[in-house]
Amino acid sequence: MKFTFVTLFKNLVNGYFSDSILSRAIEKNIINIEYLNPRDFSDNKHFKVDDTAVGGGAGMVMNPQPLYDCLDSLKKSDEDTHIIFLTPVAKQFTQRDAKRLAKKSHIAFVSGRYEGIDERVLEEYCDEVFSIGDYILTGGELPSLVICDSISRNVAGVLGNSDSLSVESFETPLLEAPSFSKPQNYKNNSVPKEYLKGNHSKIRSLKLALSECKTKFFRPEQLLKHKIASKMTNKGTQR
Amino acid sequence: MKFTFVTLFKNLVNGYFSDSILSRAIEKNIINIEYLNPRDFSDNKHFKVDDTAVGGGAGMVMNPQPLYDCLDSLKKSDEDTHIIFLTPVAKQFTQRDAKRLAKKSHIAFVSGRYEGIDERVLEEYCDEVFSIGDYILTGGELPSLVICDSISRNVAGVLGNSDSLSVESFETPLLEAPSFSKPQNYKNNSVPKEYLKGNHSKIRSLKLALSECKTKFFRPEQLLKHKIASKMTNKGTQR
Repeated sequence: MKFTFVTLFKNLVNGYFSDSILSRAIEKNIINIEYLNPRDFSDNKHFKVDDTAVGGGAGMVMNPQPLYDCLDSLKKSDEDTHIIFLTPVAKQFTQRDAKRLAKKSHIAFVSGRYEGIDERVLEEYCDEVFSIGDYILTGGELPSLVICDSISRNVAGVLGNSDSLSVESFETPLLEAPSFSKPQNYKNNSVPKEYLKGNHSKIRSLKLALSECKTKFFRPEQLLKHKIASKMTNKGTQR
Repeated sequence: MKFTFVTLFKNLVNGYFSDSILSRAIEKNIINIEYLNPRDFSDNKHFKVDDTAVGGGAGMVMNPQPLYDCLDSLKKSDEDTHIIFLTPVAKQFTQRDAKRLAKKSHIAFVSGRYEGIDERVLEEYCDEVFSIGDYILTGGELPSLVICDSISRNVAGVLGNSDSLSVESFETPLLEAPSFSKPQNYKNNSVPKEYLKGNHSKIRSLKLALSECKTKFFRPEQLLKHKIASKMTNKGTQR
């Protein structure tokens, strides 16, 4: 699977692929990363890519010309490229999107900087827009990486242990139960006794209770979703 | 303001500070970045930092000892360090948190990898936990960067033009109106005519209408918040 980062600041992105899981996926040729800089497509003699906003307002807006030419060349080299723009003016990216997008062959992430991108570029080239959450960032580079990382985990062969995919938070509406490792007792803090006794059905119910407890505390609306889903499953079983 | 990244993979983090706004804030000594690797604190002869999960389950969990010693040294060197753990089992980070946390003198971000961190470490050292959204990532490094970037923008002197802070999405419940730059007409796509006529009251109302339209499409629940807030403001004015 191929990812193209369209960004003025390649340096902010490429370090993330230098180590750990994604670097191994690149070595194994499972994922493939490329960069395009809109500045290289600017027909301005100073390679300018932004200008003041038409209609007033603080800050600079990215001009249409460099991005039109950049995205045009991308589409010409691979017409199946799925072009995602990162902007706060968008729906929020979720785990469901990660699974869906893992089936694409080539995704491009277009990062805005400054006050954003001229809307005409989105109208012309955008397949999908995403926000990653309700906070303001200095540019689209981190959201691009977040979405790339989340999609990559769902591409076959990227994770070593495929079991790790299915039991995590957001795969169900419940948040995960606490995890514990060795030693069983560290500085007078013990792992919960039930975790140690090897009765897997009891461990499962304790973990479910702890999951519900964490979800109720941090994300009460998710607990409601879980209860509705459980009721529907039970009804299904009874029939 | 100081940020400490507690991570096994410094390489995944430090590239982000090599260019653009945050690199300038570091040069100007407004923000200051440090790294701590829990592996350097491991008392295991192979510098192991993880082990299988007690109670069963796929994947490895980060052991208590290296993190206890690492965070203990951090607290001893600066007892005001505010320690944030990045985990999906948490409330979601928002712009309001960014503004609040920008007042701290020193924030540490603890990134989990593998299946997570032994819960005893959080019980002992955690001041706050955050998730950045409902999707699964390979580790806490990107969420740490997202939160650091979002907080930094609210630290005085980091952004060149302080106006840019106040008018953006998430500062109000409404998403931003589209932005346009030069030229006014590009490949037969024109900027909306109202943006060009210089009547600022008309431009403001058009931008508000476009904001409402974008919000209704992408984030209908936010539009509701905006309408309630507007009604309350109007009531306040009428009294």
